[in-house]
Amino acid sequence: MKKGIAASKGYAIGKVFIKEDLEIEVIEKTIEDIDAEKKRFESALKETRTQLEEIKAKALKEVGEEKAAVFDSHMMLLDDPEFTGAVSSNIENNKVNGEKALQDVIDMYSAIFASMEDEYMRERGADVKDVGKRIMINLLGKAGSMMDNLDENTVVVATDLTPSDTAQLDKTKVIAFLTNIGGRTSHSAIMARTLEIPAIVGMKDITTSVKNGDSIIVDGAEGIAIINPDDATIKEYEKRKAKFQEELEELKKLISVETHTKDGRRVEVCGNIGKPQDVNQVLENGGEGIGLFRTEFLYMDRDVMPTEDEQFESYKYVTEKMGERPVVIRTLDIGGDKKLPYLPLPEEMNPFLGYRAIRLCLDKKEEIFKIQLRALLRASAFGNLKIMFPMISSLEEFLEAKEVLKECMDELRKEGKDFNENVDTGIMVEIPAAAVCADEIAKHVDFFSIGTNDLIQYTLAADRMNEKVSYLYNPMHPAVLRLIKMTIDAAHKEGKWCGMCGEMAGDEVAIPTLVEYGLDEHSMSASSILTAKKIILEK
Amino acid sequence: MKKGIAASKGYAIGKVFIKEDLEIEVIEKTIEDIDAEKKRFESALKETRTQLEEIKAKALKEVGEEKAAVFDSHMMLLDDPEFTGAVSSNIENNKVNGEKALQDVIDMYSAIFASMEDEYMRERGADVKDVGKRIMINLLGKAGSMMDNLDENTVVVATDLTPSDTAQLDKTKVIAFLTNIGGRTSHSAIMARTLEIPAIVGMKDITTSVKNGDSIIVDGAEGIAIINPDDATIKEYEKRKAKFQEELEELKKLISVETHTKDGRRVEVCGNIGKPQDVNQVLENGGEGIGLFRTEFLYMDRDVMPTEDEQFESYKYVTEKMGERPVVIRTLDIGGDKKLPYLPLPEEMNPFLGYRAIRLCLDKKEEIFKIQLRALLRASAFGNLKIMFPMISSLEEFLEAKEVLKECMDELRKEGKDFNENVDTGIMVEIPAAAVCADEIAKHVDFFSIGTNDLIQYTLAADRMNEKVSYLYNPMHPAVLRLIKMTIDAAHKEGKWCGMCGEMAGDEVAIPTLVEYGLDEHSMSASSILTAKKIILEK
Repeated sequence: MKKGIAASKGYAIGKVFIKEDLEIEVIEKTIEDIDAEKKRFESALKETRTQLEEIKAKALKEVGEEKAAVFDSHMMLLDDPEFTGAVSSNIENNKVNGEKALQDVIDMYSAIFASMEDEYMRERGADVKDVGKRIMINLLGKAGSMMDNLDENTVVVATDLTPSDTAQLDKTKVIAFLTNIGGRTSHSAIMARTLEIPAIVGMKDITTSVKNGDSIIVDGAEGIAIINPDDATIKEYEKRKAKFQEELEELKKLISVETHTKDGRRVEVCGNIGKPQDVNQVLENGGEGIGLFRTEFLYMDRDVMPTEDEQFESYKYVTEKMGERPVVIRTLDIGGDKKLPYLPLPEEMNPFLGYRAIRLCLDKKEEIFKIQLRALLRASAFGNLKIMFPMISSLEEFLEAKEVLKECMDELRKEGKDFNENVDTGIMVEIPAAAVCADEIAKHVDFFSIGTNDLIQYTLAADRMNEKVSYLYNPMHPAVLRLIKMTIDAAHKEGKWCGMCGEMAGDEVAIPTLVEYGLDEHSMSASSILTAKKIILEK
Repeated sequence: MKKGIAASKGYAIGKVFIKEDLEIEVIEKTIEDIDAEKKRFESALKETRTQLEEIKAKALKEVGEEKAAVFDSHMMLLDDPEFTGAVSSNIENNKVNGEKALQDVIDMYSAIFASMEDEYMRERGADVKDVGKRIMINLLGKAGSMMDNLDENTVVVATDLTPSDTAQLDKTKVIAFLTNIGGRTSHSAIMARTLEIPAIVGMKDITTSVKNGDSIIVDGAEGIAIINPDDATIKEYEKRKAKFQEELEELKKLISVETHTKDGRRVEVCGNIGKPQDVNQVLENGGEGIGLFRTEFLYMDRDVMPTEDEQFESYKYVTEKMGERPVVIRTLDIGGDKKLPYLPLPEEMNPFLGYRAIRLCLDKKEEIFKIQLRALLRASAFGNLKIMFPMISSLEEFLEAKEVLKECMDELRKEGKDFNENVDTGIMVEIPAAAVCADEIAKHVDFFSIGTNDLIQYTLAADRMNEKVSYLYNPMHPAVLRLIKMTIDAAHKEGKWCGMCGEMAGDEVAIPTLVEYGLDEHSMSASSILTAKKIILEK
């Protein structure tokens, strides 16, 4: 039996197929004919593009538009002068072969992305590696994927699966996968949840613990794989699998059920989204609103600020899609280590305690904040949009933000543009000071949303990304629970509602306590919504 | 009128003397005779040593042992193979002249130290620059200090004053100084307070705003310099100066007065110390105990861990010196950016939220924590020593630390070594979680000491060393005040005492509120003690 990180729930009983790592050995060579070498590199790029287009088409069919979008990023990388251009320059300046030039650039980019705190950015490092490897294979003239002729009931075992690997998985054959590396939020884990197949990641040495053809049980809920199980165990897991399928079907019945506790109190179960299209997955999973739309993603992956109109279109799209349901949009939370190419920011010793979010927005009122607020206000005419300010540490900051919002309203009124004059405004309660002073702040906001990820980090002074202290990061620490309770009580005392949009909101262990405390809204990733609804409906 | 950072209180009325920056122009030359160049560098080192010995002797007489110790560090640098050895290697490897080789090494070290968060370490950068400049002057054969023939009533104006400059200041002539750069905790500011002459630092352009012989008023309390004042202003400041002198004399009468509020409540006013010898300054200023002995300094500036016996001697020295008065010794708070050469630590994205203090000590129980605890226990036999654990975020951590202490007690008992079986143990309340759960923790500790510097940073999620967000760092933020009040109340409810050892404890504006809240002990830098006693006695 081997344990790993449970990445996607479900049970599978099948046969092992080990996906071998393609051995890539880069040998440095001095090149005489630089132009020929650059052409060789360019034709590898072209070949890569053709392959990616094919894979994307397949992914579109199997996993849908949002997940297939990763291949757009890959194709964009092929055109990025900072990436492929750097390889050409490397060939030219150092007179080295394409393989060596490419490897240097991949290594550099991987190192840069790997050192970033933001999970999203670290995953971009995986993209660079993935697409870089594909180009390299084409340069070397080696064969591509080796998962073409799989049997039915195959459990794929690999060091790691890249986005292109997972996109090519044939769901009629592959019933689960296991990897040595990765975490719950790595690409492969997210893909497994989207494909709805069980998966365990971070198993360390699963590739060397099994051989091809071994029979294997995958328990995606517990993160356990049982190698060559006996008949009794197989029977046991067949039962569990059937039960799980049944529960899944049961859960699906909750999609259009409105969530109430047993004693009739309404609790909204909403989704967190990062991109406008993500709204669809929330709806498919029965989300009753958007509790957190992280707008950072509109600002990333580009060379200039998104315009007011571009932002307006995104906010409007989500708001209209949700109809009467609430859509809480958080203003830009950038800064610290989340950098934008067109916005130079200072290096910081402790970016988590630094210049970011509302601090940066209030400082850059004209060039950033007002543009976003105007777009949000204009979109507020199209549905139940609410504006939320992140990283508020005092009442003054919230009032200052409201003042800027009022300026924008005055401007729009003069310009004769529509907006909701009574748009709700609230704050993320993610800094301990905001929780401690929630009673005072509650008098002025329309709602709170507790951002537990940061609140826990600050309350316990422990960076959860730092593996030396992540053991301290505990959502159920009594201080965290007390601050949550204080915040909810403070909101209710002023007749306001209080939600939560950190990971804790969708945590099966935490939900009963939070409902007990009177939390009005739980916002979480789409895939957790149905289970959360079930827990609350039974509470 | 020019404003700057008030570095040392008092008033001075005198004439400007501008200390010109010595122009040092380093010209790179290729050297043929490497041995001769290395010898030239070594004789500059020798000359520097002789000068430093003279300066140190003078400093010993004028500012006392502790402050003169900086010149020991300077002399140690002359022997440090990583410093002077690097210059020799640079001469040899790059065939450059000594000046260029030295400049490169100074630049490298300054850059390294300047990028450190810890104030103490940043000041070490100033040491390197100071001693480096002195060697350079000797290499270049230029004259040294130019402050030899000053008139009486001189106000020295300079870009910055190095430790050697301030040590050479003749107090019979120099009545104040003003500098363009520096902060309240820079060497020059600390020296001004020790010399008890008014000073303003960080004035930006004072050197170009005055000329030699200008008459000038220095208001060290407000951080204001008035250039060529009229007679009425001079009269006004003469009055203020006289009043200040009078107040100083009055304050000195409080040295042996026990501090009580007007209604008779006892409030202890104690000193924070970093080195054993600092205890003398606390006693001279009427300190009623040591509220915080930061033990980090015993571990710094060395190549190996301090032994149990070495630590024991330091703790015993302070404890005996203080007699019956309490001595609160904090266990090692190292980690993050405060590194030790003999203890490799991981790089961290957010060192303030990282692996440090009790987290590191509990992790390195045998090689660090137990050695210190044994030394502390043995010293506890010699006076009123109390042990304090830093960065406690939960009751469990405190209990775990106590468990280790018990192990040490068992060992010492078996070894027949004396210690106080009932030694008091307490925690720093500097993480929001500890303040929020103070009621639970109070049941188990003997005392609390609120560490406001960190508590404020975490509560407001603002790194005070980060100039982009330091405006948020506000000791009087309602959330901070509430957490302080909660902590004091929790201690009192269990019959325990609560002190404070952050900067806020000695802040004249904060003291009345803290006394109101019932704080039992204020611990601060020695120079603030008498004023704090006065405020509390009048409260």
